[in-house]
Amino acid sequence: MLNEFSLIQRYFANEKAQRADVKFGIGDDGAVTRPLPGHDLVTVTDTMVEGVHFDHSTPARAIGHKIIAVNLSDLAAMGAEPCWVSLALTLPESNPEWLQEFAAGLHEICDYYNCSLIGGDTTRGPLTVTVTAHGQVPEGEAIPRSGAKPGDWIYVSGPLGDAGLALDITQQKISARGPYAQHLIERLHYPGPRVALGQSLRSIASSCIDISDGLVADLQHILEASKAGADIIMEELPLSLAMTETLTQAEAYKKALSAGDDYELCFTVDEHNRGRLETLTAHLKDKPACIGRVTQNKQPLIHFKLHGEPYEVQLEQAGYNHFMSSGSDQGNR
Amino acid sequence: MLNEFSLIQRYFANEKAQRADVKFGIGDDGAVTRPLPGHDLVTVTDTMVEGVHFDHSTPARAIGHKIIAVNLSDLAAMGAEPCWVSLALTLPESNPEWLQEFAAGLHEICDYYNCSLIGGDTTRGPLTVTVTAHGQVPEGEAIPRSGAKPGDWIYVSGPLGDAGLALDITQQKISARGPYAQHLIERLHYPGPRVALGQSLRSIASSCIDISDGLVADLQHILEASKAGADIIMEELPLSLAMTETLTQAEAYKKALSAGDDYELCFTVDEHNRGRLETLTAHLKDKPACIGRVTQNKQPLIHFKLHGEPYEVQLEQAGYNHFMSSGSDQGNR
Repeated sequence: MLNEFSLIQRYFANEKAQRADVKFGIGDDGAVTRPLPGHDLVTVTDTMVEGVHFDHSTPARAIGHKIIAVNLSDLAAMGAEPCWVSLALTLPESNPEWLQEFAAGLHEICDYYNCSLIGGDTTRGPLTVTVTAHGQVPEGEAIPRSGAKPGDWIYVSGPLGDAGLALDITQQKISARGPYAQHLIERLHYPGPRVALGQSLRSIASSCIDISDGLVADLQHILEASKAGADIIMEELPLSLAMTETLTQAEAYKKALSAGDDYELCFTVDEHNRGRLETLTAHLKDKPACIGRVTQNKQPLIHFKLHGEPYEVQLEQAGYNHFMSSGSDQGNR
Repeated sequence: MLNEFSLIQRYFANEKAQRADVKFGIGDDGAVTRPLPGHDLVTVTDTMVEGVHFDHSTPARAIGHKIIAVNLSDLAAMGAEPCWVSLALTLPESNPEWLQEFAAGLHEICDYYNCSLIGGDTTRGPLTVTVTAHGQVPEGEAIPRSGAKPGDWIYVSGPLGDAGLALDITQQKISARGPYAQHLIERLHYPGPRVALGQSLRSIASSCIDISDGLVADLQHILEASKAGADIIMEELPLSLAMTETLTQAEAYKKALSAGDDYELCFTVDEHNRGRLETLTAHLKDKPACIGRVTQNKQPLIHFKLHGEPYEVQLEQAGYNHFMSSGSDQGNR
């Protein structure tokens, strides 16, 4: 008989060694971990709900991957090194195949980033997955949203809008040619959090956020926290080949500005640190793209330009909002 | 328009000051806290789901209180001082009255135990509440489940079975006289985690667990982890007046052994430390009760005696188990 305890043990107790800083993992009332001296602890939490963030056609492996990825992406945005994760899994029934795939997806990404699953809770109910992830950063070096200053350059870490385009493809709103569709759906289901880049930005970025709700919505969070405005140069927005081959330019810009779920980082760098950033990222395949500049606070907060002319943008929605949305918005968050 | 962000800000950003060790709280990608030097971090997670752990008649305030209480109870069982909590709240709709009551219940208990709400996630979906709580304990002093040794004395921190009896009353399986019913339902809805006692037990208890699934089920977790058995003296089980006035002795024993949700601590103390425990707890209103002794490993793991004679116990269920249970078991966990 599979009880709650053996369920957790069976699927989530990773056969591989835990990190050395995990003193007690799964199997006690709580997990015990040893923080690094001289470091701050960074704690992030994200939930994914069936029918809202994914649907029944989403592979269990992708759900296991993505719930970790979205949390590590938040840690990356703070400049933190990911260390430990706790899982709260609510399931309508104990389905061994589903659990095995889900756990495999979860363990793969945890192992890749040297992050240990230290505990959690398994309950019966509608399918809901919550992860709380813990990272560490040297004392006082966490990157806030609130540090952008007029004159700082605005960067994004990679192509924008791919996950949103993939969602349209899975929902058959848009058709894409085979290889592109494959690439895009991979980006939606198995996002790669910018963990190494986030840590590199600690002493370089003045502010940082991860793009989960769309560039405009998330950049606005930086601007509101920093009491500043921004100018965005449309032709500098990084777009994937899959994007430019599938949509018109205007459609692609709209996706890049408003679609969520890409988990790239958006960050600001002052003039003085720009050279350090260029050096640091010179070797990267996806070099961060400089897409504009922070200005004084203004209304609207963001001005858009294309080839020097004002560009009127139409957003699909001003960032995804769970309580403003009436329908089912799988994949968007 | 109430979006996700303002929802969190409005109800959960506590007007009172945060702990001084919270560097960034709600409102960034992650919370930043500063661990105490020379301490281990203890992390616990518990989920409550509507229709499983509570029903629509449960007051929102009680849900807010209890999701924190059950987590702090796990921290207490580890001997940890509670510090920071993260909340993942999934709601079918934004209901201001519900949120206000829920947040009030949550803040009250957090404030009482000097614990800061540092962040979380709010999503749309079936009502589910997950809290991850963080505590600290001097390096190496967390109390494990696995340290019980033959000869150790077994204690529980207070009356057993009250929450289970209260559940029967709310479900109208049992009727109780007015003042007792009130007292019992209070115990079910607003459990008081044994936070101070847990910390006092650090250098005294050889093992500890909190009683969430019932004494027998939770003591078995200690015995399995410690590879030991136990003898329990039935007449030493602490029972409330409300319990003894409502049920027969046999019914009361059954409740005390098998009902969950009391959040008392069950712990073991070796002969050498027994005097220290007595001194430490002499001033408490609910003095821990010594209910038996750890033995060598045996089958069955636990022997029960009443006035020196073997006592045949009938358990309601061997601890609550989400995946063995087909019906709706509100309140039990």
